[in-house]
Amino acid sequence: MFPSCSLLLGTLRGISIIVPLPSSSCTGVPRNVNMEKLQTGYLFPEIGMRESEHTQKYPHARLIRLGIGDTTEPIPDIITSAMAEHVYALSTVKGYRGYGAEQGNMELRMAIAETFYRNLGVKGNEVFVSDGAQCDISRLQQLLLGSNVSMAVQDPSFPAYIDCGVIVGRAGNFQEKTGTYDNIVYMKCGPENNFFPDLSTTSRTDIIFFCSPNNPTGYAASRQQLQQLVDFAKANGSMIIYDSAYAAYVTDDSPRSIFEIPGAKEVAIEISSFSKFAGFTGVRLGWTVVPEELLYSNGFPVMKDYNRIVCTCFNGASSVAQAGGLACLSKEGYQALTTVVDYYKGNAEILVDAFSSLGLKAYGGKNAPYVWVHFPGMSSWDVFNEILEKTHIVTIPGRGFGPGGEGYVRVSGFGHRERILEASMRLKNLYK
Amino acid sequence: MFPSCSLLLGTLRGISIIVPLPSSSCTGVPRNVNMEKLQTGYLFPEIGMRESEHTQKYPHARLIRLGIGDTTEPIPDIITSAMAEHVYALSTVKGYRGYGAEQGNMELRMAIAETFYRNLGVKGNEVFVSDGAQCDISRLQQLLLGSNVSMAVQDPSFPAYIDCGVIVGRAGNFQEKTGTYDNIVYMKCGPENNFFPDLSTTSRTDIIFFCSPNNPTGYAASRQQLQQLVDFAKANGSMIIYDSAYAAYVTDDSPRSIFEIPGAKEVAIEISSFSKFAGFTGVRLGWTVVPEELLYSNGFPVMKDYNRIVCTCFNGASSVAQAGGLACLSKEGYQALTTVVDYYKGNAEILVDAFSSLGLKAYGGKNAPYVWVHFPGMSSWDVFNEILEKTHIVTIPGRGFGPGGEGYVRVSGFGHRERILEASMRLKNLYK
Repeated sequence: MFPSCSLLLGTLRGISIIVPLPSSSCTGVPRNVNMEKLQTGYLFPEIGMRESEHTQKYPHARLIRLGIGDTTEPIPDIITSAMAEHVYALSTVKGYRGYGAEQGNMELRMAIAETFYRNLGVKGNEVFVSDGAQCDISRLQQLLLGSNVSMAVQDPSFPAYIDCGVIVGRAGNFQEKTGTYDNIVYMKCGPENNFFPDLSTTSRTDIIFFCSPNNPTGYAASRQQLQQLVDFAKANGSMIIYDSAYAAYVTDDSPRSIFEIPGAKEVAIEISSFSKFAGFTGVRLGWTVVPEELLYSNGFPVMKDYNRIVCTCFNGASSVAQAGGLACLSKEGYQALTTVVDYYKGNAEILVDAFSSLGLKAYGGKNAPYVWVHFPGMSSWDVFNEILEKTHIVTIPGRGFGPGGEGYVRVSGFGHRERILEASMRLKNLYK
Repeated sequence: MFPSCSLLLGTLRGISIIVPLPSSSCTGVPRNVNMEKLQTGYLFPEIGMRESEHTQKYPHARLIRLGIGDTTEPIPDIITSAMAEHVYALSTVKGYRGYGAEQGNMELRMAIAETFYRNLGVKGNEVFVSDGAQCDISRLQQLLLGSNVSMAVQDPSFPAYIDCGVIVGRAGNFQEKTGTYDNIVYMKCGPENNFFPDLSTTSRTDIIFFCSPNNPTGYAASRQQLQQLVDFAKANGSMIIYDSAYAAYVTDDSPRSIFEIPGAKEVAIEISSFSKFAGFTGVRLGWTVVPEELLYSNGFPVMKDYNRIVCTCFNGASSVAQAGGLACLSKEGYQALTTVVDYYKGNAEILVDAFSSLGLKAYGGKNAPYVWVHFPGMSSWDVFNEILEKTHIVTIPGRGFGPGGEGYVRVSGFGHRERILEASMRLKNLYK
């Protein structure tokens, strides 16, 4: 009645070892073919597993984690006090609140518009509060746009863009040789093109994922580059999904939002987050701006469908996190967070110096918490392993961000200063 | 170059009024055809809008909201104290935590397994903590199983099952006449069949959504009925997605989990929530149990794909909510919550009595916070409007839960006792 029910134990000398199961053990539900296409595990849990293995191998080594970009510094009091106040109120008849608006509290939506998009014409009702950028990437990718759209990503890029695209069924087969999926356009970004894709040779796609300041390269696109991107999207009728999760780290005059570029509201959605700006990686809060001006090819407003998705498939971010978010955007909260962001940037600078002292090219670090280190001609997994073995420092192999990351590792500037200084010392001795 | 870019202003005497837009105004990205299939707005925001309209019409009326099932009673101190403690620790070097495990803190996962599935063989690693059942429904529906599976729902049912199924592309066209989507199997549940579908005439589908205690009917399936359901799924190779969000309200010996039924671990996933059990509608916390034994037709464990989805498209529930969840499952926390649940059940009983006094059949209320009132031969939207106009009480028209809800309204027992008593008084006078 059903397709054969059997268990793949593994492969031995290229031959699959399959054990038949009693047919009553399996349901008749076919596995999602898109899930089958996904290569190995998701990058970050994978790195976590390597960390654990290393710790088991060297139980006495003092591991320094500069892999997963996870914040480490305390959240300023003013913000946690606001959250605690909200929490205590939930135990009172007067202060108890149940469901909030699916799109987020209007006060917070307005504060986000006012803080991050002042004079850019973004209105509170265009801001949709979420439980984090990663969740919004999958909501946008999967639910809003569906499987019948084509997509482009920067290469290297944050792996969720591609993985979610594969899950929803936009990708063809994975090609081992190139390390790419068919039907996805990879826009190479490296020092050779100033970390900005050569748009003159880039095929048209419906969606273009673009992250600036970039994860993993740490590069913030210039105003001129972003204008090129918006013009390209306009000329091609493409939609940009712009990830500005690291905007708070911009030091120079690079735009912090795609909406600083004239015309962007007609072609772009922006996803952003409190995670790296406010240390909310565990608290969970983010947002997406969907401009009223953004229309599908038939003239239907994208915002209307996005609102429907949010109302149907999401019930709003935690009210506690939202209370914290509002405190982040108060004058004192914002000021206090700037100090924390500067601290992480100081860390990144120390790491840039450490790698530079080895004669290596270290990019990023200036407008982002990440340092992107070039090991020309080497395999990034080899470099990852070598650094881990010799220095007990966890990084991320660039290859995990796509084929364009080969020969690089990403090093995170999130960490206590003394650990970063210790890491810097160990790194300086890497080749001694 | 692109399909025509135009704006549908509305219809006038059956003729669509379309205004062409300058082609530069639209992107070339086609609207997701699945989104086009969705009928009107999502039910609950729709009810919210009707509430607002009514308030504008009668600014001095004291509206009583028994529509959207939103908790109203304070969260016991022991739980909010635990959350506040967690929050304050985030401002300390020692207590700060960033990303948690995507699947949830293992301590909480184990506590959920121990509290809700004692002696049922559910292990901590089979429990995936989420930010709420609704989010998990869309994750499960959309991401895990994809579009090439068939599905059945109880009729009436919580509208997210169908709407998410439509969004992912499992539904055919909507048929105005029957109020149903093609390709979705509607399993009628009403008093005529003791609120349990006639499985002997139900077509086989890959997925069966089943909610007990049921939203909206308030009916908790019996052990025997659920055994029938599991046997049916087994015989057909179907997978049950069992929604037990109201399990805490079970008063009699109806099962609180599908896993109380022998063999269920091989055919079922269970989705549940802290929302109605702990007043966490705004705090956001839920979970999904994916048993190791549950296999796709090819023998691949569903749990592995679910884990991949959670790691790729979700970053874990808020750590604050999780700290609260753990306190809910402490002995004192659980005890305190039982009192709150009993309070809501007392409310539901009062509402059952009020409707019964009018000579109406009122179902539910005993094992659920919802009362499902039958107005034979009447349109549920008419009844909704009549109750709203005459008593200023918001309910939900049964039709919003599917064609099987026609002739009913759902009345929620969530509310302060004095408001429920006031509602009861107004309702008793409905036909005077």
